[in-house]
Amino acid sequence: MPAFPLPRLPRIVYGGDYNPEQWEPSVWAEDAHLMREAGVNLVSVGIFSWAMLEPRPGRYEFGWLDRVLDTLAEAGVSVCLANATASPPPWLAKKYPRSCAVARDGGVMFPGSRQHYSPFSADYRRCALALTERLAARYARHPALAAWHVNNEYSCHQQECHSDAATRAFRGWLRKKYRTLDALNEAWTTAFWSQRYGAWDEIWTPRRAPYHNNPAQELDYARFWDDGCLDLYLAERAVLKRHTPDVPVTTNFMWPFKPLNYRRWAQHCDFIALDTYPDPHGAPPEVAAFGHDLMRSLRPELPFVVMEQATTQVNWRPVNGLKRPGQMRALSLQAVARGADGVMFFQWRQSQGGAEKFHSAMVPHAGAYAGSRVWREVTGLGAELAQLTPVAGSGVKARAAIVFDWENWWALELPSKPARIDYAAVVADFHRLCFRRNLTVDFVTPDADLSAYEVVFAPALYLLRAADAMNLSDYARAGGKLVVSYFSGIVDEHERVALGGYPAHLREALGLVVEEWDGLAPGATRRVKLPGGKTTQAVEFAEVVHLEGAKATATFAEDFYAGKPAATRHRFGAGETFYLATRFDDAALARLLDGVVPRGAQAPAGVEISERREGRRTLTFVLNHTRAAVTVPLPRAAAGATDLLTGRKAGRSVKLAAFDCAVFAAR
Amino acid sequence: MPAFPLPRLPRIVYGGDYNPEQWEPSVWAEDAHLMREAGVNLVSVGIFSWAMLEPRPGRYEFGWLDRVLDTLAEAGVSVCLANATASPPPWLAKKYPRSCAVARDGGVMFPGSRQHYSPFSADYRRCALALTERLAARYARHPALAAWHVNNEYSCHQQECHSDAATRAFRGWLRKKYRTLDALNEAWTTAFWSQRYGAWDEIWTPRRAPYHNNPAQELDYARFWDDGCLDLYLAERAVLKRHTPDVPVTTNFMWPFKPLNYRRWAQHCDFIALDTYPDPHGAPPEVAAFGHDLMRSLRPELPFVVMEQATTQVNWRPVNGLKRPGQMRALSLQAVARGADGVMFFQWRQSQGGAEKFHSAMVPHAGAYAGSRVWREVTGLGAELAQLTPVAGSGVKARAAIVFDWENWWALELPSKPARIDYAAVVADFHRLCFRRNLTVDFVTPDADLSAYEVVFAPALYLLRAADAMNLSDYARAGGKLVVSYFSGIVDEHERVALGGYPAHLREALGLVVEEWDGLAPGATRRVKLPGGKTTQAVEFAEVVHLEGAKATATFAEDFYAGKPAATRHRFGAGETFYLATRFDDAALARLLDGVVPRGAQAPAGVEISERREGRRTLTFVLNHTRAAVTVPLPRAAAGATDLLTGRKAGRSVKLAAFDCAVFAAR
Amino acid sequence: MPAFPLPRLPRIVYGGDYNPEQWEPSVWAEDAHLMREAGVNLVSVGIFSWAMLEPRPGRYEFGWLDRVLDTLAEAGVSVCLANATASPPPWLAKKYPRSCAVARDGGVMFPGSRQHYSPFSADYRRCALALTERLAARYARHPALAAWHVNNEYSCHQQECHSDAATRAFRGWLRKKYRTLDALNEAWTTAFWSQRYGAWDEIWTPRRAPYHNNPAQELDYARFWDDGCLDLYLAERAVLKRHTPDVPVTTNFMWPFKPLNYRRWAQHCDFIALDTYPDPHGAPPEVAAFGHDLMRSLRPELPFVVMEQATTQVNWRPVNGLKRPGQMRALSLQAVARGADGVMFFQWRQSQGGAEKFHSAMVPHAGAYAGSRVWREVTGLGAELAQLTPVAGSGVKARAAIVFDWENWWALELPSKPARIDYAAVVADFHRLCFRRNLTVDFVTPDADLSAYEVVFAPALYLLRAADAMNLSDYARAGGKLVVSYFSGIVDEHERVALGGYPAHLREALGLVVEEWDGLAPGATRRVKLPGGKTTQAVEFAEVVHLEGAKATATFAEDFYAGKPAATRHRFGAGETFYLATRFDDAALARLLDGVVPRGAQAPAGVEISERREGRRTLTFVLNHTRAAVTVPLPRAAAGATDLLTGRKAGRSVKLAAFDCAVFAAR
Repeated sequence: MPAFPLPRLPRIVYGGDYNPEQWEPSVWAEDAHLMREAGVNLVSVGIFSWAMLEPRPGRYEFGWLDRVLDTLAEAGVSVCLANATASPPPWLAKKYPRSCAVARDGGVMFPGSRQHYSPFSADYRRCALALTERLAARYARHPALAAWHVNNEYSCHQQECHSDAATRAFRGWLRKKYRTLDALNEAWTTAFWSQRYGAWDEIWTPRRAPYHNNPAQELDYARFWDDGCLDLYLAERAVLKRHTPDVPVTTNFMWPFKPLNYRRWAQHCDFIALDTYPDPHGAPPEVAAFGHDLMRSLRPELPFVVMEQATTQVNWRPVNGLKRPGQMRALSLQAVARGADGVMFFQWRQSQGGAEKFHSAMVPHAGAYAGSRVWREVTGLGAELAQLTPVAGSGVKARAAIVFDWENWWALELPSKPARIDYAAVVADFHRLCFRRNLTVDFVTPDADLSAYEVVFAPALYLLRAADAMNLSDYARAGGKLVVSYFSGIVDEHERVALGGYPAHLREALGLVVEEWDGLAPGATRRVKLPGGKTTQAVEFAEVVHLEGAKATATFAEDFYAGKPAATRHRFGAGETFYLATRFDDAALARLLDGVVPRGAQAPAGVEISERREGRRTLTFVLNHTRAAVTVPLPRAAAGATDLLTGRKAGRSVKLAAFDCAVFAAR
Repeated sequence: MPAFPLPRLPRIVYGGDYNPEQWEPSVWAEDAHLMREAGVNLVSVGIFSWAMLEPRPGRYEFGWLDRVLDTLAEAGVSVCLANATASPPPWLAKKYPRSCAVARDGGVMFPGSRQHYSPFSADYRRCALALTERLAARYARHPALAAWHVNNEYSCHQQECHSDAATRAFRGWLRKKYRTLDALNEAWTTAFWSQRYGAWDEIWTPRRAPYHNNPAQELDYARFWDDGCLDLYLAERAVLKRHTPDVPVTTNFMWPFKPLNYRRWAQHCDFIALDTYPDPHGAPPEVAAFGHDLMRSLRPELPFVVMEQATTQVNWRPVNGLKRPGQMRALSLQAVARGADGVMFFQWRQSQGGAEKFHSAMVPHAGAYAGSRVWREVTGLGAELAQLTPVAGSGVKARAAIVFDWENWWALELPSKPARIDYAAVVADFHRLCFRRNLTVDFVTPDADLSAYEVVFAPALYLLRAADAMNLSDYARAGGKLVVSYFSGIVDEHERVALGGYPAHLREALGLVVEEWDGLAPGATRRVKLPGGKTTQAVEFAEVVHLEGAKATATFAEDFYAGKPAATRHRFGAGETFYLATRFDDAALARLLDGVVPRGAQAPAGVEISERREGRRTLTFVLNHTRAAVTVPLPRAAAGATDLLTGRKAGRSVKLAAFDCAVFAAR
Repeated sequence: MPAFPLPRLPRIVYGGDYNPEQWEPSVWAEDAHLMREAGVNLVSVGIFSWAMLEPRPGRYEFGWLDRVLDTLAEAGVSVCLANATASPPPWLAKKYPRSCAVARDGGVMFPGSRQHYSPFSADYRRCALALTERLAARYARHPALAAWHVNNEYSCHQQECHSDAATRAFRGWLRKKYRTLDALNEAWTTAFWSQRYGAWDEIWTPRRAPYHNNPAQELDYARFWDDGCLDLYLAERAVLKRHTPDVPVTTNFMWPFKPLNYRRWAQHCDFIALDTYPDPHGAPPEVAAFGHDLMRSLRPELPFVVMEQATTQVNWRPVNGLKRPGQMRALSLQAVARGADGVMFFQWRQSQGGAEKFHSAMVPHAGAYAGSRVWREVTGLGAELAQLTPVAGSGVKARAAIVFDWENWWALELPSKPARIDYAAVVADFHRLCFRRNLTVDFVTPDADLSAYEVVFAPALYLLRAADAMNLSDYARAGGKLVVSYFSGIVDEHERVALGGYPAHLREALGLVVEEWDGLAPGATRRVKLPGGKTTQAVEFAEVVHLEGAKATATFAEDFYAGKPAATRHRFGAGETFYLATRFDDAALARLLDGVVPRGAQAPAGVEISERREGRRTLTFVLNHTRAAVTVPLPRAAAGATDLLTGRKAGRSVKLAAFDCAVFAAR
């Protein structure tokens, strides 16, 4: 029997953000009616309603929201109710000017947009919690309430604050972390550039300075910011939990998103919610898949829903293309295939005014009329998701894992490095390799239990604690296959270089030492000989590697390190390790790791096959992400099974039109 | 008998900005002498003289200006006298630090350049009006005085101000416009993103914020800025008018220039003055023509003069090329051909120091010697303009019109749209189409009387009031040809989307509805089938159009809207409407509208033929903008007529050397 | 007998920056031992030690430095001791917030990086001098002390300050310079744009403004900044000289570096010190040579040392490539070949933390082990430099000179010019021409005694005083060959154009006058006919030249100045002058000046041959900067001489492997 993301809502979640305050009450009844027509069962209400709920300081107006929730409840639509703190009303900035965030250069963020508050403002926080308290008390027992949505997309636009309050908070945070100035001075290497601190109040957040700020200060500031936002979330969540201990609470994550370490946040969510907006004109299907795999991996035991996506185009890119017919459905089913038990949109009804009025919605400007492509696709998807109820709560099993670590991201992309490495892009190289083999991967932290995986990738793991390096080594020693790529094992958690030779703590496991690294400018390449005699052009980074037991599987063919290893392989204990000393393109990577990385189901290019499992039952998703019809041979588990979408039984293969999909439920 | 721009100056105006304060008095007599030699009859004096006229607060020194004006009067050179408020003296910023403008990010504009004042500063304004009062009183009866030049290029460099005074003024402006906060909240859609205002002083100018400010706030700020500058102009003008009700007053406009709605400004000018600086190394001749056509159209009943242009190069582009021999003359005569009754330069004598010393002038650094190319061209043009006296006051008749609206410009180019549309560039597509057919066009507002035009273009008319849409429809219904292009009829004057289906209020007239629009990234194209079987590559924007009576004249040939209309034609009442659902290149546009847009005179590429009319008399300008000699067949009105420049009688065609021109006066 | 840069250190200097405070004291002994192994004889100590030497205001801690210096003295390693003022400790910014520099836009520079102080802060200055006093008193007689290193890379990151103190200082500086406001108003052409000043305190540093600030104000600000930094240096130097009048004092220069006029600084240095960081992946060998030639030319009578370079890669470019094996040695010997008597590195031991931890060092992160390429090259160079002791103090004789003037640099690159001219790049055209002929050049000021040079180049000498123009003319008249290029002789020292025709004061010497200049956009070219019938494509700038005695050696072949001179030659007195009216590529320049510019030794491309001379003895450096082996014919002075590096006697040619070098000492 399937489990459901929200106990009060025994279905796959379907719906969107609902902002009734933008419309006349007369529209609300039509909304409820149309929601039923579309198969909507959950809407997120109130995300930007603070100014309507508390129009003047301390004067609350809940009447309109009562009516909205009652209308929805009557229509059988559940609500993920926001605590409405995402953007404070104008009066807050007027009454408390210092509640506004301050940029690195000292500039103040004014109201007029959204999210201009500082998470370190005590005034913002007090007012936000007071509102939350009122809302929680009022709606704790409302029949529509299925979940709580806290704040919204924390840190999406405002990713730093350097206000006086933030500065004081940073000093307090450091004091708590380091206890003594000596410890901080040691961790930050303040002996460099005459930065030794003699008092806590000499320390600043990394403000505008003539040149690079101390990287350890920058790294700690990134942690502090993440922590400050999380602390705000926890305070908001605590209020809600006090009133409704049994109602799931979450906040919506984004991908790709660097400022917040969602690993830590996920520990405090009751289900995972993702806002996903791949560019429909540019992003291949693995881009969205990365986000789903990451979200599912944050806490595999929790349900995960897509909380926001666009029915077709967004408004915030410089140029915003349409999703083609079927593309939104395919991307939605892709999310489900990779673990999601819900699919929602921003937003229900396309806004008439404001900065996002050209963001597509479930009900377009022209209304929910029969001829509307968007409306047709929205109602179609709603009906299909109802048919996929058996999928809910089923699991996803990954045979491979990729180490992905936010702290490493923050540290690796600080300036003053041998080359500019885009961590998410380098990690995506390995995810894409697996995606194209229909090999599902989990994303893991470097201290995770890796024993279940056939292969583990650790790309550009620049910041690597000794214990984590040991964990990776142990995995290989015990029989695993560990793939490490360049510029790994360089610094500890304080951005201090490990002096014993790179990559620190992994030399034995990899059977090599790296002496030097050559930064390659954009466009520059180094020829590399691959196994079998082919050559490839490597980019970005080229290391001078000395073997200490490993064997070269590829060698540089130019520059002074010609003949030296570009990729290696090393027997280590019961397992094997692999090292990549430069950045390879997809073809070369596939060739180098061909025997190492297992293959999932065979499928034509652009067709994704993913599985979910419920006990011994396998649900096979076959998703055609291309603009052409394809014939896809089915994996054994799906052959002869029934397509939950069409009710048709499959043979040994399935024909799919452009962007068409099938979900086979085998016995 | 011709009319003249300035009643006291019965000639075509010729001259330039004259800044005698930059030179020893001994130079002034030589200047007057050289002006006579060059045929100069008007100079603009005192534009940046405030610091010389009022060197300390309240201490005025007019003696030097008396002498300058007397010298000019004696030489028979008239003066367009500036009220000298364009840039306040350094003492003003010192005495009133808050008179300086404040940028969006809060940064203060310091003195040291020009135009650093805030138009909302009461101190600046009081001092500027006091100076104007003194000047007007002193020179009201001076024999040299022919016109007043108010301030200079309002808003040229300082295009926003967010000072405390500006903020207060903005609130007052909004209060006057909306009367109630409810009305403002409704108009600005503040229900979006929790922006509902509960007090007037919670509202800010659109300052630095984490993300997009409210677009209605931005749009109102653009109006407010335009209004504030206009208000300053009106106050300055009123002082002058009080002293000299009969002396024409103007201020100089620029093109292209977005911040000021010159339509409104023109209502308060006695003649139109344009500063025109097309890039001589890059801009084809239609670029300058656009500016002339627009200026002439602002108030067709008024005279119009080119108040500033360069004799050859400017100083303010990153790289500044020379005008080729003859090019300045051709561009000057082009202005006259399109309605100008005067041609002036910045400036008379090239500065020895300061930020514009490498801007060319009538008298170059080396002086006005015989061998100087610039001086030769300057004196030559002066002599020729004297021969063109019959042209003065004659009219220009346009058979076509293009809707051009500043409010639409401001709204359309706010961020957060399906694609980035450059309004002036899109409008220029249609102007260029007509220019290359020697078809003169007027620029009109969407509420103008259109009955005189054979065809009216309304490109990208994103912000369209219902009444204006009705005006356009009525024009077509009554027999006109109306050409509308993509992304028209989307929002009302508050940036609120009209919900009845795009393009709002024009569906019936166009016989279609637009369901979706696809933003195309730079470089992306969509193949379109044109009439006759040819194909073209359309760019920027592609709409999904459903016909409701119209017929497709071109269809998309790729993407999911393949087969759907890319251009349409629709009989409507006694007239016809045309719709373009994407952006076409010049060739495709010409093909699509070939039977629709009339042709003027035939001429080789790069040769412009324009007409002015005085009663039944036609003055035909033939202008060779190319670097090669051409033979141009003459239109009927010019055949056999006399060239006013050479005195020669024409046959059926005329031969023109590179950049050469002829002006035929037919009986 | 050779002279040595430092009297107390009778050797070619070898070493690097040494920052022992970043390491445990236990490392110091190993450092001393390794320094001996590497042949190090001088280290720069204490550059960023202020926070360690004065951890709290007024509390000094010299114990650790005592121990460091004693350890070094015992090991026989001399010290270039810093006065440690390069970056103040955090307490200074806390105690004196106004000691921080302020950017043009008003933004404050916070501590956390380095060099955030304002050189105009009296508090910074008082504290810096107090520290200097203590250090000088304590170590004046220390046996390790060989030289003083003042501050560090003045103005490297902080190149302007607009604090209140800086503003007051600027006003004082102007008052001292101009004495009266009338004089300033005249010099600054404040009659332009209403900028006339009526009081000193109305004047600001060039702050953020709506448009270009007054260029004379900008130029004076550049001088003021240079002066302010120099004044700080002089104050620091004076303290040291009071305590140790006989110990050489210097500060380290950079190249290319625009903000400081090192000509003036060199007058106050006891030896010249250069930090040189050419990009090893991109910069051809002449790039570093430019810096060496310039530094040697600043005061030819003084010793010059390379004070900083990288053993291999730096950290501060976006992408940082490695030096290939041998490249560091070749670049080091190149410095010596061109006049350096010392070669040092930043830094001795690669940092473990901080913003420069990925900057290479003499001892890499992995330590000074035998297999380390860097360590091998470091010890190898140390040994070789010891063999080059005979070179120390020998001279370099240049046959050609290039006029290079910082004031011209500042003025020429202010905005609002006919085109954007990169002064250093244009000057490099001529330096490269000579470098590739193995013709050593000096860099000279326009008022220098030029009589010793066979040819003098004056490229783009935009700012040219009349007396300096006379000096150049006199040189030619007396028999010299003077090569002047476009946009020379335009303004005086106040950015005021000389009105007598361009190039001012050089028309007679050049035999021509320039009427106009055409700015050519990037990518635009003008065809030019060269002598012999070939053509070339000239770029950037094209002048309309009229001959007044000179003869055209090249002519434009397109645009309206086709047929007019692009290059000229003119007999003038006993000499000859040459003028280039556009920018030529290397081949065209070589062709045009082929008979004019003498040739040095013949060598294959990429091989440099330079000579130093000690009395009648010639030391010939042959440096292969290429990645291939070459055979180089030896000039007469080297043929048969002994290679100081290998001890081998040469024949008529020498074979050199990639990056290999030889130094022949002839009798």
